[in-house]
Amino acid sequence: MTDVLTLGETMAAFRMAGPMRLGGPAHLSIAGSESTVAIGLARLGHRVSWLGVTGADEPGELVRRSLRAEGVDIALARVDAQAPTGLILFEPRVGDLTRVVYHRTGSAGSRLTADDVHPAFADGRTPRIVHVTGITCALGDGPYEAVRYAVGHARAAGSLVGLDVNHRTRLWSARQAAEALRPMLPSLDLVIASDDELAVLTDDPDPVAALLAAGVREVVVKHGAGGATSHGEHGTLHRPARRVPVVDTVGAGDAFVAGYLSGVLDGADAAARLDRAVTVGAFAVATRGDWEGLPSRDDLALLDHDPGSAVR
Amino acid sequence: MTDVLTLGETMAAFRMAGPMRLGGPAHLSIAGSESTVAIGLARLGHRVSWLGVTGADEPGELVRRSLRAEGVDIALARVDAQAPTGLILFEPRVGDLTRVVYHRTGSAGSRLTADDVHPAFADGRTPRIVHVTGITCALGDGPYEAVRYAVGHARAAGSLVGLDVNHRTRLWSARQAAEALRPMLPSLDLVIASDDELAVLTDDPDPVAALLAAGVREVVVKHGAGGATSHGEHGTLHRPARRVPVVDTVGAGDAFVAGYLSGVLDGADAAARLDRAVTVGAFAVATRGDWEGLPSRDDLALLDHDPGSAVR
Amino acid sequence: MTDVLTLGETMAAFRMAGPMRLGGPAHLSIAGSESTVAIGLARLGHRVSWLGVTGADEPGELVRRSLRAEGVDIALARVDAQAPTGLILFEPRVGDLTRVVYHRTGSAGSRLTADDVHPAFADGRTPRIVHVTGITCALGDGPYEAVRYAVGHARAAGSLVGLDVNHRTRLWSARQAAEALRPMLPSLDLVIASDDELAVLTDDPDPVAALLAAGVREVVVKHGAGGATSHGEHGTLHRPARRVPVVDTVGAGDAFVAGYLSGVLDGADAAARLDRAVTVGAFAVATRGDWEGLPSRDDLALLDHDPGSAVR
Amino acid sequence: MTDVLTLGETMAAFRMAGPMRLGGPAHLSIAGSESTVAIGLARLGHRVSWLGVTGADEPGELVRRSLRAEGVDIALARVDAQAPTGLILFEPRVGDLTRVVYHRTGSAGSRLTADDVHPAFADGRTPRIVHVTGITCALGDGPYEAVRYAVGHARAAGSLVGLDVNHRTRLWSARQAAEALRPMLPSLDLVIASDDELAVLTDDPDPVAALLAAGVREVVVKHGAGGATSHGEHGTLHRPARRVPVVDTVGAGDAFVAGYLSGVLDGADAAARLDRAVTVGAFAVATRGDWEGLPSRDDLALLDHDPGSAVR
Amino acid sequence: MTDVLTLGETMAAFRMAGPMRLGGPAHLSIAGSESTVAIGLARLGHRVSWLGVTGADEPGELVRRSLRAEGVDIALARVDAQAPTGLILFEPRVGDLTRVVYHRTGSAGSRLTADDVHPAFADGRTPRIVHVTGITCALGDGPYEAVRYAVGHARAAGSLVGLDVNHRTRLWSARQAAEALRPMLPSLDLVIASDDELAVLTDDPDPVAALLAAGVREVVVKHGAGGATSHGEHGTLHRPARRVPVVDTVGAGDAFVAGYLSGVLDGADAAARLDRAVTVGAFAVATRGDWEGLPSRDDLALLDHDPGSAVR
Amino acid sequence: MTDVLTLGETMAAFRMAGPMRLGGPAHLSIAGSESTVAIGLARLGHRVSWLGVTGADEPGELVRRSLRAEGVDIALARVDAQAPTGLILFEPRVGDLTRVVYHRTGSAGSRLTADDVHPAFADGRTPRIVHVTGITCALGDGPYEAVRYAVGHARAAGSLVGLDVNHRTRLWSARQAAEALRPMLPSLDLVIASDDELAVLTDDPDPVAALLAAGVREVVVKHGAGGATSHGEHGTLHRPARRVPVVDTVGAGDAFVAGYLSGVLDGADAAARLDRAVTVGAFAVATRGDWEGLPSRDDLALLDHDPGSAVR
Ligand SMILES: Nc1ncnc2c1ncn2[C@@H]1O[C@H](COP(=O)(O)OP(=O)(O)O)[C@@H](O)[C@H]1O
Ligand SMILES: Nc1ncnc2c1ncn2[C@@H]1O[C@H](COP(=O)(O)OP(=O)(O)O)[C@@H](O)[C@H]1O
Ligand SMILES: Nc1ncnc2c1ncn2[C@@H]1O[C@H](COP(=O)(O)OP(=O)(O)O)[C@@H](O)[C@H]1O
Ligand SMILES: Nc1ncnc2c1ncn2[C@@H]1O[C@H](COP(=O)(O)OP(=O)(O)O)[C@@H](O)[C@H]1O
Ligand SMILES: Nc1ncnc2c1ncn2[C@@H]1O[C@H](COP(=O)(O)OP(=O)(O)O)[C@@H](O)[C@H]1O
Ligand SMILES: Nc1ncnc2c1ncn2[C@@H]1O[C@H](COP(=O)(O)OP(=O)(O)O)[C@@H](O)[C@H]1O
Repeated sequence: MTDVLTLGETMAAFRMAGPMRLGGPAHLSIAGSESTVAIGLARLGHRVSWLGVTGADEPGELVRRSLRAEGVDIALARVDAQAPTGLILFEPRVGDLTRVVYHRTGSAGSRLTADDVHPAFADGRTPRIVHVTGITCALGDGPYEAVRYAVGHARAAGSLVGLDVNHRTRLWSARQAAEALRPMLPSLDLVIASDDELAVLTDDPDPVAALLAAGVREVVVKHGAGGATSHGEHGTLHRPARRVPVVDTVGAGDAFVAGYLSGVLDGADAAARLDRAVTVGAFAVATRGDWEGLPSRDDLALLDHDPGSAVR
Repeated sequence: MTDVLTLGETMAAFRMAGPMRLGGPAHLSIAGSESTVAIGLARLGHRVSWLGVTGADEPGELVRRSLRAEGVDIALARVDAQAPTGLILFEPRVGDLTRVVYHRTGSAGSRLTADDVHPAFADGRTPRIVHVTGITCALGDGPYEAVRYAVGHARAAGSLVGLDVNHRTRLWSARQAAEALRPMLPSLDLVIASDDELAVLTDDPDPVAALLAAGVREVVVKHGAGGATSHGEHGTLHRPARRVPVVDTVGAGDAFVAGYLSGVLDGADAAARLDRAVTVGAFAVATRGDWEGLPSRDDLALLDHDPGSAVR
Repeated sequence: MTDVLTLGETMAAFRMAGPMRLGGPAHLSIAGSESTVAIGLARLGHRVSWLGVTGADEPGELVRRSLRAEGVDIALARVDAQAPTGLILFEPRVGDLTRVVYHRTGSAGSRLTADDVHPAFADGRTPRIVHVTGITCALGDGPYEAVRYAVGHARAAGSLVGLDVNHRTRLWSARQAAEALRPMLPSLDLVIASDDELAVLTDDPDPVAALLAAGVREVVVKHGAGGATSHGEHGTLHRPARRVPVVDTVGAGDAFVAGYLSGVLDGADAAARLDRAVTVGAFAVATRGDWEGLPSRDDLALLDHDPGSAVR
Repeated sequence: MTDVLTLGETMAAFRMAGPMRLGGPAHLSIAGSESTVAIGLARLGHRVSWLGVTGADEPGELVRRSLRAEGVDIALARVDAQAPTGLILFEPRVGDLTRVVYHRTGSAGSRLTADDVHPAFADGRTPRIVHVTGITCALGDGPYEAVRYAVGHARAAGSLVGLDVNHRTRLWSARQAAEALRPMLPSLDLVIASDDELAVLTDDPDPVAALLAAGVREVVVKHGAGGATSHGEHGTLHRPARRVPVVDTVGAGDAFVAGYLSGVLDGADAAARLDRAVTVGAFAVATRGDWEGLPSRDDLALLDHDPGSAVR
Repeated sequence: MTDVLTLGETMAAFRMAGPMRLGGPAHLSIAGSESTVAIGLARLGHRVSWLGVTGADEPGELVRRSLRAEGVDIALARVDAQAPTGLILFEPRVGDLTRVVYHRTGSAGSRLTADDVHPAFADGRTPRIVHVTGITCALGDGPYEAVRYAVGHARAAGSLVGLDVNHRTRLWSARQAAEALRPMLPSLDLVIASDDELAVLTDDPDPVAALLAAGVREVVVKHGAGGATSHGEHGTLHRPARRVPVVDTVGAGDAFVAGYLSGVLDGADAAARLDRAVTVGAFAVATRGDWEGLPSRDDLALLDHDPGSAVR
Repeated sequence: MTDVLTLGETMAAFRMAGPMRLGGPAHLSIAGSESTVAIGLARLGHRVSWLGVTGADEPGELVRRSLRAEGVDIALARVDAQAPTGLILFEPRVGDLTRVVYHRTGSAGSRLTADDVHPAFADGRTPRIVHVTGITCALGDGPYEAVRYAVGHARAAGSLVGLDVNHRTRLWSARQAAEALRPMLPSLDLVIASDDELAVLTDDPDPVAALLAAGVREVVVKHGAGGATSHGEHGTLHRPARRVPVVDTVGAGDAFVAGYLSGVLDGADAAARLDRAVTVGAFAVATRGDWEGLPSRDDLALLDHDPGSAVR
């Protein structure tokens, strides 16, 4: 049985060492919001299934290989020989600001459809949690339908349904996102968003209240280095970020989600869920790569050591 | 005044250090058959103009920067903000066999049109040589029309017109290539092709004779490590390849073309043209990268040193 | 159902870029004869199960992660918190000669016992092939008993049983190897050995004949760059090595075995089995790393391309 | 028409990854105060001409190639076959303190003479700005005369003349610098200096006032992380430094100058000039290399993003 | 004559660039608390002798080579062909927290015995200082006896005897350490410890007072980024840490000790000793590697430069 | 007592990974013909003393550190604060042809004088062998006098005196070399030269006979991949080169000399001396770097292994 099902596009990712216009050394890995969440959960010992489409090419093989390595179940993933695996290029531009070039138009990942999702709920299978993001919804009609199908069936099957807004301005406008995401609100148990993303989901001046009123059971708001706040029947709970040296902030939000869902699966209360979330988020921030440094369950305690110490 | 005008697509090129499915280190540079020819010519001291389209992105900036660095004139090149610069991924697969992944569908480079070529012949400008390849013709209607325009106007203006067949099976079939390239034969002075590419240009069992009969003045056939042969009014001349350690064969054909055209510009006879061509081809083979190791005019003599020696 | 079961020790492997006494850059990966065979088979599309013990440490996590990535089933592998994962250090010493330092004494991998093998045959499970090597037998009593148990039960269950002699002089003497391996001969269907390893299995002046007489159905002898020979009811068949540039010969023998067993699983005849074996062996030789460059089924055809060409 | 003319020595620069006495990895690029200013201006879209001498060697080719790549006009630069291109070795010594080894004595760059500058003002050419530094003055009589010639003719032609004191204690003493630079004061419109460099230009206890009294129209004082102050007819204006993570401070002053002169060329007022200067200076500080990370005009806005964010 | 004698185990050290479970780039160097102290002292111009055992293997050759390079006298060191040189693997886990894997059980270094120490005191040789650490005591009976022998003879010969507690929880418990170290207290002149290590030496609620009462002449307590305090007949002196960017804190304590002992050898007073200690400690913290960045005598003044400046 | 004394200049050496004009990665080490010989001898277990001058800079510290590491005695070497340590830049240009840029004019190394050599023969010290090269003689009057002094005193003291012609056309002409070297012939016991260097020493059409007639006891001629020949009272002996993969030929001649002198010190006959010489030369050719891969005494046997095998 799967603890968590998530779906989306995972791309081959080149990370430049310096400015792209100078050429030079780069490093190839994978990137995708949902698969980062999946890896984070798998490292914490949960059973996760990632559903998406890759091309029949070596970049696709890299995606599949990396997810298998991390113990993420890709039995539901599909290989599509008609389109290439998408690419993303990361360039460290200035300070810790990263610039991104996408080569994902027409990618295999954007060919995800609701049909791909059917088997995930076939034969009475019910993941405990279904996690979706706004990114998948922005990839095209097929992926959007896939998300709708997953959310609908998950709700019907009694899975907890979570959405991370994850607004990408290069993929769609806030208005397009609003049109696509708002109709799903009634089916959502959990909404995770950055401060500035709440407006995508509601025009209400008090967005959190509006979302809770709309039936969402818990709204978790990320504030970057300012930590995070959870709103729900437990009231409002805030946790500051863990103090760590900032190495690479890309992926922090996904790591946070992995930590949060891990808390949910462990049956932790809201405070403990937030604690886990900010801890996993801190690992993402204090290590290089989107997912490479995410913690195993044993690693969680490492942040309690003195900074600058050696575990020996 | 420009010695040589060439036109085509130049991409940002990631060269993996190992198998792509394992991820890991890569190196970013640029690749494009026509720009390799242009760089080869510029290093040998000729004035070359490269005409093509790049995206308004950092990969495009890399292309422009690299060509400027090499002294290639890009005044005629255009930046198109509607499409990304194409990408090419090189993977050293086994021995010296390289595998390629393209991300060039819908690229800025494929948005080249005949309009882009107008200025090259405006105000009575006449490049001494116009060099085109089958690759550009395969990129779409626009690029094909651009090549046709260039070939037509060059012919009219009295420029020498050369075509490198450069058949790419991932871009189009031999039949499609035949349909596109054969109509240009009457306008060509020089044809350069690998042994197996001649059949693209004619169905005649003696393709060289057929091409010469069709009005081509010189047909140069490349045989890889077997050297090359020139056919023309001077009869048939063969040159063996220079004996060098094989480091990276990608780009050998383009280097060969640069050497050949350099000989033409210098007014060398067929034998000397072939000599220069196989020498520059050998530099490509015995150095890493498509164009990075191409020789300056002084460097040409280096291959006359004892192998394994140091110039000091 | 598993196609192939294999068992042994896989270590974390540091590969120096230069002489070890100068320190400097190294690269961490994994190494183990049996897991290289397993990866080779998995890349060719077979279902393989690797059985072994790793430590509860990050080097062990690297081993498990790498095997999972390659699609090797490690459900039967055990984590032993009482001992560290073994290490192997590779140093490119001179030309293509590699020097090895082991840190495997008392390693988790050497704590393998027959008990670890029980589940592989429980509940009527029968792998089609069981592959063992002399290395595992050299690691101590426990691993030796594990091999004996696997060979015995495989024979009883009707699996094909193969042994690669793989003599390691740093682990034991030829005499010790002889004492350990000869008693297993009656249970072996297939023996793979280098020319100089046959004497480990028999004192007979015609070792191949003696092995066949002893009931082994097929004896395959590897001759390095000289190719390989198969002896059996089909008579004697020789295949030369494929001509490839030599990049890194470590792991050639294991790649050869993977190719051979793949042929067996495909029901190929002896000639086709040898062909596949020398082809996979050539991939090992012409790529860097023990297993990193092994071919997928599609890749097998790559060696038929012209050397120095690009697949594009 | 050239917007800015600058002149000086640009060297090939090796940047060690670690302590020099341990040997090991290094990276080759170019370094030179005036060419960094030139690159900074070119990236911001201005037409800049760099005038200097390089050797007829590959390090010189690197200098020329890099400047051409960046769009800096080097038509006025000279190649001198009698002397080698100078070298500079950078060693990251402790924290962000860099140690420098020069190999520039007798270099081609130090063979610059006033004759080299003649063509810059021939035929009525008048750069809008002429930028010089104390470093060029310290390189020998020839370079000093070249600076004097440039400053004199620029003044006569009505160009704005700027001097960056840029005192290098390894090249000359403060007293020698004073003797060389003070006579030029009457021809200077703009003086840029660090706090501790003002004393090179005047012995007056209130150096800024003294310089303004001496006819300098604007005195800009850099305070490192403390920002910068501009003094002139607009009074005294201070700008704090932009808050960025410090990656590599070498080149900050030159970047600052590029930003400042860019403001001048854009006709910006003193406040806007300082803003541009501290912004470009911050790019230098928050990216690796002297000039590699300098901003294009579009990039200027990047520092307004939240730190740690990704532009996607 | 030797200024300082120290004894212990030095290992070959692999330092991963990223998470160990992902494999990838690493760097080989050496590590050992006592040899770091020795190198620190040698760089400051003192004559130091390091006594320990290495294997007859290339990792051992690396240890010997590195110490010779640094001018540490290894005439007393022994090569033991019966055991391998120990290994240590460093993994940068999260932020500046380092995780360590040891492969030192049964290592050559742990085969040190009192017999190895005899020659250090033979023929009336008397080092001015003998420096020992708790780590050597934890390696087994032989190393412990070696330390006892050295401490005993040093005391008798009038050398100053110093102990750095250096408690390693992976090697032994605090209780085991207490049992081993406390009996040596009467022979110690100088004790150096972190705040939390004092309890290893005494159960007294005021450990410093207790140690001084027990005859130790000086107790120096390190507080990491909080600096250090010296207690002795000069009373109590505190020095804050030098403010430097934190790059790699491993080895700070050993660098501190080197600085302190250097002060002792120079005859400096307690304040100057502490100054030198925190300065050398700051070099360790602000450079990569345990010992690679330690200062020469000239370098000591570098920390007085402005941060971010270049010495040129 | 010293077995071998040698004198010359050793430089800090940057080795580019690719073409110098592209900038990019390089590696810093040391290079110098005589110190390569010294390192080769030290690795083979002989006591060698290197005499030369380095600057008071970090490149000089690198030279001293590297020689100490290798066990070469540098007690006679001098540090000269008036001049920088020389630099040499290696660029792999095409195939295995290396191009060199020198920055050694006015270097510390060229400030060697006869005075520096006095202590080497003071107090009756007599090295068994004194080894000099033509390179040192080409560096200026001081170094030439130093060589003359060493050769003269060595002869007087009964040391064996060897000269490696080592003609460097970038340093002086063949005629200048002849004038400098020929006067030393009467003092030489051993001359080592490449085929084309013999003409530097004599105009005789049979140079070997002429040299032997002039009193040289043994003339050893290197033929690169063709091996080497020894002429002397033992007649004429030829040895082919060992067959190894060619990795980097720079330094082969010096390695050869080290092997030869090692044979002399071991009292080997001419055949065994040549055998050792071609073996050590082969190590240089089949490993990267001038001296990094030279063999220890145990390593000598490695070339007897099968190519492509692993020692484990
Ligand atoms: N600088 C930081 N230091 C520590 N934790 C951080 C930091 N930045 C982000 N985090 C953690 O990661 C979480 C998500 O980060 P945030 O930047 O809000 O998400 P996103 O990556 O989606 O923009 C935060 O709530 C916080 O817990
Ligand atoms: N192995 C080689 N050794 C030396 N020169 C070569 C080698 N391979 C190619 N060349 C030179 O480069 C030229 C073009 O190479 P070829 O492989 O025919 O072109 P392409 O790269 O277009 O396939 C050859 O004619 C020859 O002169
Ligand atoms: N230089 C080579 N070129 C091509 N194939 C090789 C080469 N060396 C080995 N092989 C292939 O790999 C197989 C196993 O290699 P071998 O060296 O005999 O095994 P091992 O690695 O066990 O010593 C050989 O039979 C051959 O097919
Ligand atoms: N740490 C820093 N943070 C942000 N900006 C800086 C920093 N250091 C320097 N700068 C900017 O660069 C400008 C020049 O730096 P400064 O160090 O004064 O010049 P120089 O490199 O010539 O010594 C400063 O005025 C400031 O605007
Ligand atoms: N962050 C830091 N900044 C500056 N100096 C430091 C820092 N951390 C340690 N040091 C210096 O190194 C000394 C030893 O460091 P500490 O961490 O106490 O030792 P250890 O490495 O043995 O744990 C400190 O007393 C201090 O002088
Ligand atoms: N390609 C090679 N293969 C094997 N050994 C070589 C090779 N090249 C040189 N050597 C060995 O090194 C010796 C010196 O090489 P050579 O090239 O003659 O010297 P130098 O480096 O001074 O020019 C040769 O005599 C031979 O023994």
